[in-house]
Amino acid sequence: MRVFILNPVLRDVDERRASQRRQALLELSKTIPSDVKLEFRDLDRGAETVESYYDEYVGVADMVEKAVEAEKDGVDAVVINCFMNPALEGLRELLEIPVVGAGEAALYLASMLADNFSVLDPDPPPRSYTHKLVSALGLTHKLRSVRYLRLGVAGLCEDFDETLNKMITEALKAVEEDGAHAIVLGCTGMRGYAMKISEGVKPYGVPVIEPLSAAIAMATLLVRLGLGQSRLSYPKPSEKRRVA
Amino acid sequence: MRVFILNPVLRDVDERRASQRRQALLELSKTIPSDVKLEFRDLDRGAETVESYYDEYVGVADMVEKAVEAEKDGVDAVVINCFMNPALEGLRELLEIPVVGAGEAALYLASMLADNFSVLDPDPPPRSYTHKLVSALGLTHKLRSVRYLRLGVAGLCEDFDETLNKMITEALKAVEEDGAHAIVLGCTGMRGYAMKISEGVKPYGVPVIEPLSAAIAMATLLVRLGLGQSRLSYPKPSEKRRVA
Amino acid sequence: MRVFILNPVLRDVDERRASQRRQALLELSKTIPSDVKLEFRDLDRGAETVESYYDEYVGVADMVEKAVEAEKDGVDAVVINCFMNPALEGLRELLEIPVVGAGEAALYLASMLADNFSVLDPDPPPRSYTHKLVSALGLTHKLRSVRYLRLGVAGLCEDFDETLNKMITEALKAVEEDGAHAIVLGCTGMRGYAMKISEGVKPYGVPVIEPLSAAIAMATLLVRLGLGQSRLSYPKPSEKRRVA
Amino acid sequence: MRVFILNPVLRDVDERRASQRRQALLELSKTIPSDVKLEFRDLDRGAETVESYYDEYVGVADMVEKAVEAEKDGVDAVVINCFMNPALEGLRELLEIPVVGAGEAALYLASMLADNFSVLDPDPPPRSYTHKLVSALGLTHKLRSVRYLRLGVAGLCEDFDETLNKMITEALKAVEEDGAHAIVLGCTGMRGYAMKISEGVKPYGVPVIEPLSAAIAMATLLVRLGLGQSRLSYPKPSEKRRVA
Amino acid sequence: MRVFILNPVLRDVDERRASQRRQALLELSKTIPSDVKLEFRDLDRGAETVESYYDEYVGVADMVEKAVEAEKDGVDAVVINCFMNPALEGLRELLEIPVVGAGEAALYLASMLADNFSVLDPDPPPRSYTHKLVSALGLTHKLRSVRYLRLGVAGLCEDFDETLNKMITEALKAVEEDGAHAIVLGCTGMRGYAMKISEGVKPYGVPVIEPLSAAIAMATLLVRLGLGQSRLSYPKPSEKRRVA
Amino acid sequence: MRVFILNPVLRDVDERRASQRRQALLELSKTIPSDVKLEFRDLDRGAETVESYYDEYVGVADMVEKAVEAEKDGVDAVVINCFMNPALEGLRELLEIPVVGAGEAALYLASMLADNFSVLDPDPPPRSYTHKLVSALGLTHKLRSVRYLRLGVAGLCEDFDETLNKMITEALKAVEEDGAHAIVLGCTGMRGYAMKISEGVKPYGVPVIEPLSAAIAMATLLVRLGLGQSRLSYPKPSEKRRVA
Repeated sequence: MRVFILNPVLRDVDERRASQRRQALLELSKTIPSDVKLEFRDLDRGAETVESYYDEYVGVADMVEKAVEAEKDGVDAVVINCFMNPALEGLRELLEIPVVGAGEAALYLASMLADNFSVLDPDPPPRSYTHKLVSALGLTHKLRSVRYLRLGVAGLCEDFDETLNKMITEALKAVEEDGAHAIVLGCTGMRGYAMKISEGVKPYGVPVIEPLSAAIAMATLLVRLGLGQSRLSYPKPSEKRRVA
Repeated sequence: MRVFILNPVLRDVDERRASQRRQALLELSKTIPSDVKLEFRDLDRGAETVESYYDEYVGVADMVEKAVEAEKDGVDAVVINCFMNPALEGLRELLEIPVVGAGEAALYLASMLADNFSVLDPDPPPRSYTHKLVSALGLTHKLRSVRYLRLGVAGLCEDFDETLNKMITEALKAVEEDGAHAIVLGCTGMRGYAMKISEGVKPYGVPVIEPLSAAIAMATLLVRLGLGQSRLSYPKPSEKRRVA
Repeated sequence: MRVFILNPVLRDVDERRASQRRQALLELSKTIPSDVKLEFRDLDRGAETVESYYDEYVGVADMVEKAVEAEKDGVDAVVINCFMNPALEGLRELLEIPVVGAGEAALYLASMLADNFSVLDPDPPPRSYTHKLVSALGLTHKLRSVRYLRLGVAGLCEDFDETLNKMITEALKAVEEDGAHAIVLGCTGMRGYAMKISEGVKPYGVPVIEPLSAAIAMATLLVRLGLGQSRLSYPKPSEKRRVA
Repeated sequence: MRVFILNPVLRDVDERRASQRRQALLELSKTIPSDVKLEFRDLDRGAETVESYYDEYVGVADMVEKAVEAEKDGVDAVVINCFMNPALEGLRELLEIPVVGAGEAALYLASMLADNFSVLDPDPPPRSYTHKLVSALGLTHKLRSVRYLRLGVAGLCEDFDETLNKMITEALKAVEEDGAHAIVLGCTGMRGYAMKISEGVKPYGVPVIEPLSAAIAMATLLVRLGLGQSRLSYPKPSEKRRVA
Repeated sequence: MRVFILNPVLRDVDERRASQRRQALLELSKTIPSDVKLEFRDLDRGAETVESYYDEYVGVADMVEKAVEAEKDGVDAVVINCFMNPALEGLRELLEIPVVGAGEAALYLASMLADNFSVLDPDPPPRSYTHKLVSALGLTHKLRSVRYLRLGVAGLCEDFDETLNKMITEALKAVEEDGAHAIVLGCTGMRGYAMKISEGVKPYGVPVIEPLSAAIAMATLLVRLGLGQSRLSYPKPSEKRRVA
Repeated sequence: MRVFILNPVLRDVDERRASQRRQALLELSKTIPSDVKLEFRDLDRGAETVESYYDEYVGVADMVEKAVEAEKDGVDAVVINCFMNPALEGLRELLEIPVVGAGEAALYLASMLADNFSVLDPDPPPRSYTHKLVSALGLTHKLRSVRYLRLGVAGLCEDFDETLNKMITEALKAVEEDGAHAIVLGCTGMRGYAMKISEGVKPYGVPVIEPLSAAIAMATLLVRLGLGQSRLSYPKPSEKRRVA
């Protein structure tokens, strides 16, 4: 089974971050069954990171192009490697194979495992993209709090230990002060920290959900069950005049 | 006051439709105070009509470009001439002046005037874009039903009398069978029919809300009150590497 | 166009307050287009301020009388000059022309401009009239917090600078501590402070919505669009024996 | 224990209706414990029936007067004999003793006994007072349907057998077509029919809730438990200038 | 009238606790009309206290047995003496007579008397049984906060004065810090403290609802009105092979 | 990986049904990766089928016993083979390994793949167990309709072709009349029909979700990701006196 991981951002030009990323992928691969092959792809046209609707708009045309091409090439599912699920609706319209967004998969899993969850958001308050995302999925009643790291997506890679420390601190505050029963990592750029955050909150028995691995697992599940997005919810766009 | 009307679609190449459109605009201009100047603009890159998320993606880059340019040129507000409000979030992030979506304005007005409303949707069932739009605005508790015209956006211009007849029939069914207290036209392409639909349901005292005129009026109101979108809800996108 | 502003309270006998009020109306008139004429009217029978359901009951009969008379006299719309929207439902039943409540207009505008809002309430906690009002409009999901000024409606006019200071402090707390994205003034008696509160939170790009100007603008919009309350939501009361 | 039943309408001048009413009260008294004494009171100033907000406004001042007087006279609780609960909020503000609305009591009881309920509404569709009432109580998720009798409140007394027949027909439709699990009578004027409607749907095991008897029983319960409305939800109106 | 109180726990073997309990029942009996006879029954098979779903499972078979037997013996209603309402659904399926859960009755009463309520929970945070219970009743919009006593059910009987002090402290915090308008005792084991907690918050005019007395009163009300659970919501279990 | 499938019912004594069941399991096994081993277990004490809360109560003690034993024996996850998720909460409290309910897994998957879903319920209307289940998961906004087969769980195995025909008919009605975008099979006893129902609605592109395979896949996913139920949502039951 081939799962196509579409990164909705430009290729990283910073060597340290790229190295951190390779490391995180290695960890990730341990949770993947041996018959699943992951194929990663960055954008040629898009933004460096996705932190606004505008950033999504910049990359959306290239995302469509690469996903359509991948389907033609025979991949079995597409995973959008971003908590914000950019282009999820349009790709589901265009493709026959299942398309899974990282944020969507993580938030549904968290809803299934716990009475409520808090999200670690890389950005500063009072950003409300996370609230909008959770609301669009119809899961607002499960959202306990958003804990802001105030680092920005790029800042997640600055200093590993300091960043990790901040994440664990906020995860513990979510549990102890906000009453969170599960922690959702609000950016797939946090995947290198997932295991250690999980250890940090282990005394509470609180699951920590990393969105990229959640989405890959969910895509695998869908392929195996022969399931995909509803064509009635995501109708095939009709033929018409379009100028790119 | 200058209000910039951004059509999120390609210029119409069909002469009959273009003529109908000019006619509808004439009607529209009667509801505009004399000190308000409307400036219309079509897309150079985009789709012929917006009926899918994919159609939105195709036009979004050009929408951004034209709206940013209009703001530099000194317009006072931007209205998105489409019930689906494409690019509303991103334009609100990028611009300082108020940005109003046609669907959004119509749905809020309807909510204020009536206990509930039904939407006339140009597409066939079971399309759920309208449901998603209403839900994203937090107004699902006000939505009584979606009545489908099964014409498509382009089909709205085929035969005026037949189309009008269909719209009045569905509006009356919304009132009589579904219990709707207000009718929202679910496409700005219906504006040529608005007055006649309104007459058709007049015996019930049911308001019929046409989204483009609603949005222009709302934009005018905001400019006069010195109000605009919250910068906290729509933060300015930060500077970063972006490749178009 | 003539807009009738119905004050649901007795004429103010305190000269200082009356003078403040005239000053506030001057500011207000700047946001009104030149073809709109405002006509204010106080009650002869009613309460000094509206701070309870009982206060509403005391004035409701006179409100009806004056509004019906104004319609006969040819005004184009009625605005209820109180955040609590007293008698809104009954006046909408009785009149053909549009009736707009100040609180209603402000809360819908805030909902359109921001992900959420907080309300500055003149009264002390834990008063929940504001919560009931927001809930009745179906906008509870947008309400971030109610910030209490603990002054009472009459107290709003005691000491301008001290009161202003308190309002700005609470507005900033709403933004910084509660995460509010917009501020709604919870009493039309605050309109003299609106501009200065707006300046106070300007660094955050947070809109401040003053209910009376919002309602007047909304009434103007409705008249221009030829829209009014749904007769199905507000049916004409039938003839029957009534003893006043 | 003395329970004061406040009828928010003028005394009935039609002898047949008055006689029907006496009959209904006899039936009612069978469900009352022997130590509870009921005291009925009509309005001197008000409307013949309550079918609009305007009708409520007409009677509200006299309701306040009579309820305040009754409390001074030593009654233990006040019941508002109308499904619409007119003046409920204001009376709860003004009185120390418990105040119970007939509609409120019936809808809470129905919510406790069944997964959902339908309401028999005396008026024609698409009246939405019942929807507003249920929504204000926060019970919309329990409302299955409103079944309209199209008789008006006065019409309930025209022809007993025909009216009863209509009621049973609509109650059965609510169960069989709408899936209702309980039936709430949407007007206290239906109390003479309550037992027979109950028999009509008995094969389904569906409870039929009559609002006046529900409210009297609830008031009795509150008095016995020493409970009453929260003073924080219904604060005592402050002293101020009021002109009646 | 005979009301059967089913305690879903084993008979208490601690003499001090049993004595406290007898004392509390004496207080309780003062709120019961003279024609109502209470019959208490403990379990032979079950848990010492109900603080988990597992505890409910342990006792559920014996609860069914004793309730069915009581109905055969002619009691008029069954009250489940536990805030968690264990076995409520199953007993309602099996019995013809009304079955009332203590938590359910208390939460509905609180909803009727106040805009919102807080619950005193005997357990430590972040237990969410109370949240689940309130949500299952569809009353989440009324729940202001859960205040945790951190004592456990058994701990409620350790030191009367210290426990009472803690309860009053948390009740006052619910009012003063959380904005609660009513207090619901989240365990029928608190009934010995109910009156004194009520006195403690009296200055605020806040009702304190004790679940066992609420449920007994509600059961009495249902019997008198001839009402019971809907058979459609709680269908009679069909005959089939069952092995105990 | 070992997944323990707990059937909350007595072993089937009907040979035809048992044979159908073996056939269905064969189909099921095709969707399972080769390193996953399924272990099925029936109850010794319980009901023949689970169609009421009472049926759940009868089997719950044996379910606990068998699940605890399986965990000791080293299985990696427990799946409850029933759409109603009996004992889900208690097993999650007691076990360290993940516990997944069939209905829960199916409903979350459907929510992720489509805007809404309908459920095929084996029972007759107006049964509302499905509504309660969906509501308890917080997914009511996704439920379009419940379509009743009126067969009962046992009846599902009577005549394969007739039953299949009925299921496809109701699934098509859900799509065509109710506007469903996905179909959820409301009983794990329908798994032998899943593929053919799926083919029946294929022209619409509507996913059909079979709960047992969904739950097994979800359990596998959780084990691979190292995730399980939150201990804070499902706290370990404390030691106490319990009599079985």
